[in-house]
Amino acid sequence: MFSCPLVPRFLETDALGHINNTVLPMWFESARDPVFRFFTPDMDLNNWKLMLGSFNVSFHDETHYGSDVEIKTYISRIGGASFDVYQECWQHGKKTVSGTATMVYYCHQQKQSQKLTPQIIEQMQAHFIELT
Amino acid sequence: MFSCPLVPRFLETDALGHINNTVLPMWFESARDPVFRFFTPDMDLNNWKLMLGSFNVSFHDETHYGSDVEIKTYISRIGGASFDVYQECWQHGKKTVSGTATMVYYCHQQKQSQKLTPQIIEQMQAHFIELT
Amino acid sequence: MFSCPLVPRFLETDALGHINNTVLPMWFESARDPVFRFFTPDMDLNNWKLMLGSFNVSFHDETHYGSDVEIKTYISRIGGASFDVYQECWQHGKKTVSGTATMVYYCHQQKQSQKLTPQIIEQMQAHFIELT
Amino acid sequence: MFSCPLVPRFLETDALGHINNTVLPMWFESARDPVFRFFTPDMDLNNWKLMLGSFNVSFHDETHYGSDVEIKTYISRIGGASFDVYQECWQHGKKTVSGTATMVYYCHQQKQSQKLTPQIIEQMQAHFIELT
Repeated sequence: MFSCPLVPRFLETDALGHINNTVLPMWFESARDPVFRFFTPDMDLNNWKLMLGSFNVSFHDETHYGSDVEIKTYISRIGGASFDVYQECWQHGKKTVSGTATMVYYCHQQKQSQKLTPQIIEQMQAHFIELT
Repeated sequence: MFSCPLVPRFLETDALGHINNTVLPMWFESARDPVFRFFTPDMDLNNWKLMLGSFNVSFHDETHYGSDVEIKTYISRIGGASFDVYQECWQHGKKTVSGTATMVYYCHQQKQSQKLTPQIIEQMQAHFIELT
Repeated sequence: MFSCPLVPRFLETDALGHINNTVLPMWFESARDPVFRFFTPDMDLNNWKLMLGSFNVSFHDETHYGSDVEIKTYISRIGGASFDVYQECWQHGKKTVSGTATMVYYCHQQKQSQKLTPQIIEQMQAHFIELT
Repeated sequence: MFSCPLVPRFLETDALGHINNTVLPMWFESARDPVFRFFTPDMDLNNWKLMLGSFNVSFHDETHYGSDVEIKTYISRIGGASFDVYQECWQHGKKTVSGTATMVYYCHQQKQSQKLTPQIIEQMQAHFIELT
């Protein structure tokens, strides 16, 4: 599991007084940085190897400005060329949001998916979670 | 179906050269304005009646800066207190993104869900789509 | 003057109940699209010719969700390689925000500024405003 | 001086390959959190005491995704009811962006500015910078 601390921003609240729902996909993308490094260790944007196929987000409780959150990031499925990243947002000891992103190992030059290598799979397994 | 034209913003691109994936939930929320009006016709934020339970987004093709998009918004499920909003993003005659948001008719003061009224259901039915 | 209509997004509000201040630079950038076209008529991002040097924004009144705004865009200074874009945000007949961005005609490949051409200057003059 | 470490987000890049200019006002607002605490120590959004009058931002160099930045925050002017916050963004030992925000001590209920108290001024002086 990768743990990413994050400070909610005032601008990320909305008129209902808590963090707007559309902010969570942004936090989750940001907390996937260590997953990006599996594919592009030097973070060179000209050598990007990933494509997002889909994602879902479920809201369990409000998230608030004024206290830090922790984003927990796991690999929840390892396929041939694709894999799932499961993430949770925690604040004050409560899971407030969870979600899964399906990503594809992808060559942007050839516009073609690629098979996950044994090295990448090994790195993923260290962060694997079995979702029931 | 509600049709919402939208101009992609330069800042909504990312280093891969097309619209960043986290932007789509923002566009979809914005295009749900007419659904919000079912519940709060005068858009008074102190009288907001909706809560987002979950949403998912699927990416079918890249969306680009430089050309307008159209967001199509439908009601795809009408439950007791909750309902689904199905949305698509179209650009250059292609569906580039689709997604569904599950919303709850909710009283923020009492922190309790409420039963959809016949008037609201009638308005929803005019925009209903049967997803297969 | 270029007039750009814009629909405030719910997510652009903050906990104070109106549009967050950091949203305005985004609206203003978006409304500079016609200025971008002076330099890159086909909006090809691989052939971008502009760099932002600085900008300032002044808030005169609150801007609210629930009603459209109009962004007015003018050229307020034409220099050798740089120029100023002056913009205003109007809602309900009131100017709520104004600001100026200083942009540079710039070759991103050579990392060097370029002299504004007579054709570009002519297009700019049609949208010129004298600020006092 | 308040020092705020910050991790650039992939989504904050744009098609030019570096952090979009409109992101900086968001980072600067976020790094003003300790200044907000001068006025509302418990960060209670129902008891907010500040209004943003204006701000300016100057770009000195590109800011990139893939490396942390540091936002340095100073008080650069202490007036009667208003004050200036001067901020810099640093990455790889270079100042990439700087800017000043003019804020007003403000009662949102009475819609009226308020005189800075000696306690607040004392806290500000500990973070004062003389800009030349």
